[in-house]
Amino acid sequence: MTENITMPAPAEELPLTDSVKEALAIAKRGCDELIIEAEFAQKLARSEKTGTPLRIKLGLDPTAPDLHLGHTVVLNKMRQLQDLGHVVIFLIGDFTSLIGDPSGRNATRPPLTREQIEENAMTYFKQASLVLDPEKTEIRYNSEWSDALGARGMIKLAAMYTVARIMERDDFSKRFKAGTPISVHEFLYPLMQGYDSVALKSDLELGGTDQKFNLLVGRELQRQVGQEPQCILTMPLLEGLDGVQKMSKSKGNYVGIKEPGNVQFGKLMSISDDMMWRYYELLSFKSIQEIEKLKKAVAEGMNPRDVKVAFAQEIVERFHSKADAEAALQDFVNRTHGGIPDDIPTVKLSGAPLPIGNLLKQAGLCPSTSDAMRMVQQGAVRINSEVISDKALKVGAGTMVVQVGKRRFAKVELA
Amino acid sequence: MTENITMPAPAEELPLTDSVKEALAIAKRGCDELIIEAEFAQKLARSEKTGTPLRIKLGLDPTAPDLHLGHTVVLNKMRQLQDLGHVVIFLIGDFTSLIGDPSGRNATRPPLTREQIEENAMTYFKQASLVLDPEKTEIRYNSEWSDALGARGMIKLAAMYTVARIMERDDFSKRFKAGTPISVHEFLYPLMQGYDSVALKSDLELGGTDQKFNLLVGRELQRQVGQEPQCILTMPLLEGLDGVQKMSKSKGNYVGIKEPGNVQFGKLMSISDDMMWRYYELLSFKSIQEIEKLKKAVAEGMNPRDVKVAFAQEIVERFHSKADAEAALQDFVNRTHGGIPDDIPTVKLSGAPLPIGNLLKQAGLCPSTSDAMRMVQQGAVRINSEVISDKALKVGAGTMVVQVGKRRFAKVELA
Repeated sequence: MTENITMPAPAEELPLTDSVKEALAIAKRGCDELIIEAEFAQKLARSEKTGTPLRIKLGLDPTAPDLHLGHTVVLNKMRQLQDLGHVVIFLIGDFTSLIGDPSGRNATRPPLTREQIEENAMTYFKQASLVLDPEKTEIRYNSEWSDALGARGMIKLAAMYTVARIMERDDFSKRFKAGTPISVHEFLYPLMQGYDSVALKSDLELGGTDQKFNLLVGRELQRQVGQEPQCILTMPLLEGLDGVQKMSKSKGNYVGIKEPGNVQFGKLMSISDDMMWRYYELLSFKSIQEIEKLKKAVAEGMNPRDVKVAFAQEIVERFHSKADAEAALQDFVNRTHGGIPDDIPTVKLSGAPLPIGNLLKQAGLCPSTSDAMRMVQQGAVRINSEVISDKALKVGAGTMVVQVGKRRFAKVELA
Repeated sequence: MTENITMPAPAEELPLTDSVKEALAIAKRGCDELIIEAEFAQKLARSEKTGTPLRIKLGLDPTAPDLHLGHTVVLNKMRQLQDLGHVVIFLIGDFTSLIGDPSGRNATRPPLTREQIEENAMTYFKQASLVLDPEKTEIRYNSEWSDALGARGMIKLAAMYTVARIMERDDFSKRFKAGTPISVHEFLYPLMQGYDSVALKSDLELGGTDQKFNLLVGRELQRQVGQEPQCILTMPLLEGLDGVQKMSKSKGNYVGIKEPGNVQFGKLMSISDDMMWRYYELLSFKSIQEIEKLKKAVAEGMNPRDVKVAFAQEIVERFHSKADAEAALQDFVNRTHGGIPDDIPTVKLSGAPLPIGNLLKQAGLCPSTSDAMRMVQQGAVRINSEVISDKALKVGAGTMVVQVGKRRFAKVELA
């Protein structure tokens, strides 16, 4: 804890150059809220003047991640800021994970070991590096300064915030009113996270809109110890493929970054034209100006489907390769222009609902169920042209065209 | 923090011997609440059976004390328990004092140094030893185990209690409802105090009725780590000499344990007969049986004034000496039987209000103001038969008999 507090002298207000204004526009692209814009403009101007990059914090839980495009919205914003020359701090919140669930209510959540935490962090970093520039990313663990607080530091930290202000957090006030138990330690977590900003001397913290409360705590704590407070940039939660609900694995409306390229491609081609522009804004590496040009072209008669293809290819290329993006396009074209031969065999099977692996084996499309599983995993299996990605799928009774890879087909009558 | 929790096997229920029943009656004498009596009876029975003394905790702030009789109610109870063979732990809550006021709102309350804390604790212990048996008193400082908790231990501790339960504490719920700020660290203090009971393996904790909430936290935390929970004994707050308000220095209705014997004696003789029995119950070392005998004697015609004299003498003897108790009685008798000579000189003074020291010097009753201060301190100064204990007293205009010691008198006409 900083013992002696000296407030920094108020900085002179710098004029905003064109490049600062441009950087500000990039930072604000697609964002939900920037707190406070004028302060952030000054930070950008000072950074430009002094040649000192801004320090941008992204706090992460050290859980084993399996990212989908929704998670990459914030990463994408960081990438844009990295491209402007700033430094991203990938902050692993390992401290509390080393404790586990201290309430002991969740016996199935034992504390993570240091090895598990580092492995999870590296898995996350590897996935995130498909979006971020790893050269301009610093990885830090908050146990570095949290343990050093000690019991006394924790009390001092807790003294910096009032119960009433912590209770302003939506979930706390709701739970308190509903009589749902809140453990006292849950009040300490936002403070620990805020203290991370103090320890890192963060200039900007990014998060989802649902993180706004926690990000503001950091701002307040920095002010209290006499640091210039960080700005806050919240990004919206990305809508899923349905264009209505937030993208989430459990809702099935997601595009996983590790899904096969042709699966990603097919899913992205299914979104509405409106959602396409939303995805462009939040996920594309194309500049604001380039996107404006595309919009203009569509307004003047260009088929939006072609713009969607370009976007889907950009995403597949980012998470796989240019070749995969080409193959996914080709595959999509084949399929949508009707790639199913006329002379496919008809197979009669019984035992519905039948696991997908058994169906493929019994239809003679795969030599074994394990081979069948592999094909599903590769996104090479389709039923009635729809890619099947769920290895646990049980197929119900009916007549359907089943396809494995480019050439194996069967018309299955399943009873 | 205890990591592995094993609940103790439920102990067999022991029969209560006569001596255990007697001890229970002594423990309950004058108490406000004993939580839970049946549990405490079992602790006493087990202690008797195994010859292991109970560990009785009294938590204290390491502030410089200036005790009055009200403070000694709890000490007296501890003394009774010591006389039954149990061990008293004089727990100095130094940990939080070493932090000071972490909110920084009270700049006039800097953290105490280790030396100041130990000095205050010793001052307290020295005063308390006039009531307690110092041989059966252990002095402990809670920084011993609180620092060792570290930041993680603090979080684990905080996880053991819910916000809703902490909010049940009267002052918290009132302040929260009134919108008066409560710092988050204030929620940690009852938990730290409760953890002291865990660290000490306390069997019984004593406190004023106003401490009940905090004492119960200790009970709960012990249960959570698998210790047999401590029992709680709350003592009432002693009424002052007026018999109405709580004894307090600021209300002037107190008997300080460092006040001169004749001052104490005079003050105690001023209480009502009803209050006298209350004081006997809470402050006398006389047994329950002895007090019953006195009550019976009064009912049968004994002058209650004589019972009051015996009590006042017991108190003066405890805090001074047997000789002082005798002298105080003699002094009281002299005074109440009219000890003022007829032929005292009359002195005319001006300058009212006049500091007491100047008055005594100018009236020729003391050779110097510093001598006058000493006489006030010794309780040797009276105005109109009332002992003056306030060295800063300014005497207003009027005519009064001023007395110093046994023989020096003057009739002062102050203008």
